[in-house]
Amino acid sequence: MAKNITPRAENYSQWYLDVIAAGQLADHAPVKGCMVIRPTGYAIWEEIQKTLDRRFKETGHQNAYFPLLIPESFIHKEAEHVEGFSPELAVVTHAGGKKLEEPLVVRPTSETVVGHMYAQWIHSYRDLPVLINQWCNVVRWEMRTRLFLRTSEFLWQEGHTAHETEAEAEEETLRILEIYRTFMEQQMAMPVLAGLKSDTEKFPGALRTYCVEAMMQDKRALQAGTSHNLGQNFARAFDINFLDRENKRRLVHTTSWGVSTRLIGGLLMTHSDDDGLVLPPRIAPIQVVIVPIYKSQTEQSTVMEFADQVHSRLAEKLDPLKVKIDRRTDMRPADRFFHWIQQGIPLRIEVGPKDVAKGAAMVVRRDNRDKASIALEALADEVPALLERMQGELFDRAVALRAAHTHRVESYEEFKAVLAEQGGFIEAHWNGSPEVEARIKEETKATIRVVPDSEDEPGKCIVTGEPSPRRVVFAVAY
Amino acid sequence: MAKNITPRAENYSQWYLDVIAAGQLADHAPVKGCMVIRPTGYAIWEEIQKTLDRRFKETGHQNAYFPLLIPESFIHKEAEHVEGFSPELAVVTHAGGKKLEEPLVVRPTSETVVGHMYAQWIHSYRDLPVLINQWCNVVRWEMRTRLFLRTSEFLWQEGHTAHETEAEAEEETLRILEIYRTFMEQQMAMPVLAGLKSDTEKFPGALRTYCVEAMMQDKRALQAGTSHNLGQNFARAFDINFLDRENKRRLVHTTSWGVSTRLIGGLLMTHSDDDGLVLPPRIAPIQVVIVPIYKSQTEQSTVMEFADQVHSRLAEKLDPLKVKIDRRTDMRPADRFFHWIQQGIPLRIEVGPKDVAKGAAMVVRRDNRDKASIALEALADEVPALLERMQGELFDRAVALRAAHTHRVESYEEFKAVLAEQGGFIEAHWNGSPEVEARIKEETKATIRVVPDSEDEPGKCIVTGEPSPRRVVFAVAY
Repeated sequence: MAKNITPRAENYSQWYLDVIAAGQLADHAPVKGCMVIRPTGYAIWEEIQKTLDRRFKETGHQNAYFPLLIPESFIHKEAEHVEGFSPELAVVTHAGGKKLEEPLVVRPTSETVVGHMYAQWIHSYRDLPVLINQWCNVVRWEMRTRLFLRTSEFLWQEGHTAHETEAEAEEETLRILEIYRTFMEQQMAMPVLAGLKSDTEKFPGALRTYCVEAMMQDKRALQAGTSHNLGQNFARAFDINFLDRENKRRLVHTTSWGVSTRLIGGLLMTHSDDDGLVLPPRIAPIQVVIVPIYKSQTEQSTVMEFADQVHSRLAEKLDPLKVKIDRRTDMRPADRFFHWIQQGIPLRIEVGPKDVAKGAAMVVRRDNRDKASIALEALADEVPALLERMQGELFDRAVALRAAHTHRVESYEEFKAVLAEQGGFIEAHWNGSPEVEARIKEETKATIRVVPDSEDEPGKCIVTGEPSPRRVVFAVAY
Repeated sequence: MAKNITPRAENYSQWYLDVIAAGQLADHAPVKGCMVIRPTGYAIWEEIQKTLDRRFKETGHQNAYFPLLIPESFIHKEAEHVEGFSPELAVVTHAGGKKLEEPLVVRPTSETVVGHMYAQWIHSYRDLPVLINQWCNVVRWEMRTRLFLRTSEFLWQEGHTAHETEAEAEEETLRILEIYRTFMEQQMAMPVLAGLKSDTEKFPGALRTYCVEAMMQDKRALQAGTSHNLGQNFARAFDINFLDRENKRRLVHTTSWGVSTRLIGGLLMTHSDDDGLVLPPRIAPIQVVIVPIYKSQTEQSTVMEFADQVHSRLAEKLDPLKVKIDRRTDMRPADRFFHWIQQGIPLRIEVGPKDVAKGAAMVVRRDNRDKASIALEALADEVPALLERMQGELFDRAVALRAAHTHRVESYEEFKAVLAEQGGFIEAHWNGSPEVEARIKEETKATIRVVPDSEDEPGKCIVTGEPSPRRVVFAVAY
């Protein structure tokens, strides 16, 4: 057992922070609630960015950059928006040695300033759709923070689109939701439920919020991404109008959608164990680390030469930048193994004098510790296959965990008992009222995480007995 | 002539803004001095990022992310640093609905917070060097702003490294300077002078600042990038110490270096003309645009089919994402040509019924308007060659402009006369004193842009007649 990591069973929250510290993923910044993302953590973010950015561009989106500082009055132009974000704003009151005439807020999200610009750029239906995304930092002053999951500043992407019709805006909202879902399931091996948020949980200013929700190993829910159909709310607030095909002036329909560095926390809590970080191969910045082991100088040269051969074989089939040789000479092999285990590297390849003699290398999986001696000639075929198998097994394991901790209940009594005793996702009928939702949250801390996009299955609200078209998913959330 | 662009000869500043507006590169943000980088402009930034990021990683650097908000007290820990940056700070005084105990500054640059973290991460010589870069936004409250060149918020990369010895820090500083120089010359086709800054012009807190300086078409100088050897100044201020190889505690030596979205302004002013933006092929997000021309529907299908063939031929040799077909049907060909001219696309390929009949396409260069009919079979070879030739010619032209406007003067009288009549770079002897430098700036607005890394060529200071080891380069700068 890793001495620098508290076991999950002992203290889950401390385990989470220990895994981050041991893997050198992030650190607390001097300003309370803010974080520093260290190179190992940032490399994961770069992998996330690379895949998502490509998928956004393949679906016609372009990147742009909107300003960090927003006039405070902008936030007030959409009633729900100001109510939702006002308590979390960081405000610049002085700049260039003077008090500002109007305070500026550090963007908590950019719908307002984007709306202001779109009003200037959009004149005719020919200018639509506008499909823009930006990668940036945002600030939301949070009371209780936790590295990656909830920090006062975080990195994210925020997409902002404008369309001629509500149908097109809805289509865009769902297209992005599907990009998020497949990205998280296929690349991060993190299964998610996709669907609608209840009105209580929707984005301040949205018509409808869709989300993807994942189950962490402690059975709590993590909102991993959201996609909002904003209707004409921001178009109205910022007067984003256009001449339509009949030469009539109309308001556009907008959407916004985002995922953030929170995903790194979700990735960690989906796969890691009591020895530290476990990264699924497709999202791992380094997929394979080759660790040479030797005692004498003679051994060193033979072993290093063989390690280089292993590297070049793997570089034929994998991204060469994702295969690393650990060339450190001032650390014992056990310490080097430990280092790479805690960095979550999917496969470790040990090369010692005996391996060289056999013309093979010992391949060790990070997740289940399976070891196999693989001949040099077979590495280029077997290692990529092993990485893909590991990717699939990590996903299957996470799906199994979620299945084992998803419960259907038929009464509020059962709801409370299951939640208290087992936690997890609870599928229950609900009458659709915010009051019932609020009561359940007040009494159990569980919220409606998602109204799944599933077949109707009529039933009765567990609290009021009123009719319900389908079950919704409740859970205690991060 | 483009009606939406003021000619350079008439009003250079207005020309600059008109080119940006016509090319849809950027827009003024609602907050004074800030900008919105539109997709066309941001795509150029992404090209800059892609190449530089690869070169940083090839030289062992990793990306990370440090926080936006810095305790105000940090800025005060390094005497020159606070003096240099205090007048430009934006300050957050309220957050989460409350007045903060200590105001937070929005980072103008990150040496202080990086220093604070490095002090916690670095313990032994084994932890060195630390080679970290970050891509982020910074805020410096500027009085006179101009899109890209000087904005209150801008995007940049800032590298921060820590080393065991001064020699290693100096080596790093110069390695990065060389990366900047070759990037700007090879990719941006923008020739630069590389060398030292005078003490007056160096970064607040640096031991030595190196820079790359380019000449714009109006003969003014643009500081395009800087690389600072910070010595032990920030190590002392933030107590970044380590146990050295003799087990003695010592301070590290640090460097920092950056280039920003200002480069987009430099790129624009190096190559563009009175019709708008001109992009060198290697930095152009789209290198080739294929414009189909037809009148009837029969023509349309033949022409579009041929255009697709042209596209697939080019996609064999070029990045397929950099070859675009203009499929718009609601714009006249002339308007479409005009659109792509103003976006600076290096090559336009016109495909009309006559071209299809000949089995060829008309290739038009953006820079000099040269036209050539190239057979379909030859496109895959000739277009990439043409792009490379164009890249080289744009660079040569910029080098020639600089040569034509670089003057050697032997007296202060001559200095003033040449500067007033011709502008440009003036190579003159200087005694090394800040007082003389200040007097020249006061009287002529020219500053020392760079002390070139050249052979000694002793002479006499043009102002005092005192000995000077070599000429320095003066210019009026952006």
